[in-house]
Amino acid sequence: MNTNETKNELRTEGKDTPNVPKAVINRLPRYYRYLRELLAKGIGRISSGDLARMMSVTASQIRQDLNCFGGFGQQGYGYNVEYLFGEISRILGAKEGFSCVIIGAGNLGCALANGSTFARRGVTPVALFDVSPAVVGTRVAGLPVYHVNTLEKFFQTHNVDIAVLTTPKPAAAEIGRRLSALQVGAVWNFTGVELNLNPDVILQNVHLGDSLMTLCYNLRLARNEID
Amino acid sequence: MNTNETKNELRTEGKDTPNVPKAVINRLPRYYRYLRELLAKGIGRISSGDLARMMSVTASQIRQDLNCFGGFGQQGYGYNVEYLFGEISRILGAKEGFSCVIIGAGNLGCALANGSTFARRGVTPVALFDVSPAVVGTRVAGLPVYHVNTLEKFFQTHNVDIAVLTTPKPAAAEIGRRLSALQVGAVWNFTGVELNLNPDVILQNVHLGDSLMTLCYNLRLARNEID
Repeated sequence: MNTNETKNELRTEGKDTPNVPKAVINRLPRYYRYLRELLAKGIGRISSGDLARMMSVTASQIRQDLNCFGGFGQQGYGYNVEYLFGEISRILGAKEGFSCVIIGAGNLGCALANGSTFARRGVTPVALFDVSPAVVGTRVAGLPVYHVNTLEKFFQTHNVDIAVLTTPKPAAAEIGRRLSALQVGAVWNFTGVELNLNPDVILQNVHLGDSLMTLCYNLRLARNEID
Repeated sequence: MNTNETKNELRTEGKDTPNVPKAVINRLPRYYRYLRELLAKGIGRISSGDLARMMSVTASQIRQDLNCFGGFGQQGYGYNVEYLFGEISRILGAKEGFSCVIIGAGNLGCALANGSTFARRGVTPVALFDVSPAVVGTRVAGLPVYHVNTLEKFFQTHNVDIAVLTTPKPAAAEIGRRLSALQVGAVWNFTGVELNLNPDVILQNVHLGDSLMTLCYNLRLARNEID
């Protein structure tokens, strides 16, 4: 199968893809991680049963999830790990080559700029924005830090797909409005503020506090059982 | 209802609680956030239908989820927001008063130490640990930064419920083994490394890359539709 065929197939399937349940889409990155691990171990094929045990889900869930995208498994053979990994990478846009700006050059913004999360997902940060005179004009992870007042000017001359929002809460709503007006493709929102964006803008919220609450719940539960 | 009664009821229910589906537990923090927002707006009661619209889920899912914990709704009245918020806070251990250490005093560790995530969930950071001479001996967010070699000594004299792991990947596995040996209650793992902990230790992974992949997928999907 050459690349053009793959692209055409994808485009045809694309019309149906919005019907894929959001829960399945949210699970795909997890498949991506486990398959990458199998690849790294040199494992070429895996049954839905073995993959299920590895991921602590049912084999039937795995078959259902992967069927949503046309089903890559073969009866009696299982899944070809490399092919499945390639397909999921492509579906998730892992090699898409998006650009992003990070708004808020505090600890979290700098952690993201310095980390490997973007590079591993094919996203390239091009600049940071902040208001503090202590950081505006400096460089973080080799990237320029501009004043947030120059955001509109920057968008005029640069192609920005994604805005990563790590500002303090009070600044979030206004920046959200400006990003909507700038017709940014997507906002990755770490502020914990519910943003009211233009419906065309993809919004992905990260609520670290939710994860911490789940941890606390499980910890309390474990300790009650010990009592 | 006084506090002792509440505690006893909880303890009795605790025996059944492990049967609550993991998916429901994972959704509770989201209920918590929406209910807190309603409380802040002074809204005293809400129907499952209105709550469902707000949260973009079905009313039947809301009723099912909340029934897992005994069901706090009343026919024809709906949910008492303050009561429901209080119950979910209690279930999630939001007021539990856990302590934590942050291992890795880089940008992410500092972002967490300086942020409000811990305080809002009733978790108190007590110290950070690192290996870099540039930070060991300094203070971050008013907390001491110790050398990671002194972790075992610290645990001898301090009650630590949770270890927050923000080290570089290569250090994660060894720290994980030491935390298992120290019988820490839970590990909140930001390293992206799959940790092999003692089964008694609660493990909560944060995979920011998964969230970014979902964003990229949705962005690509939106752009294909435009084509």
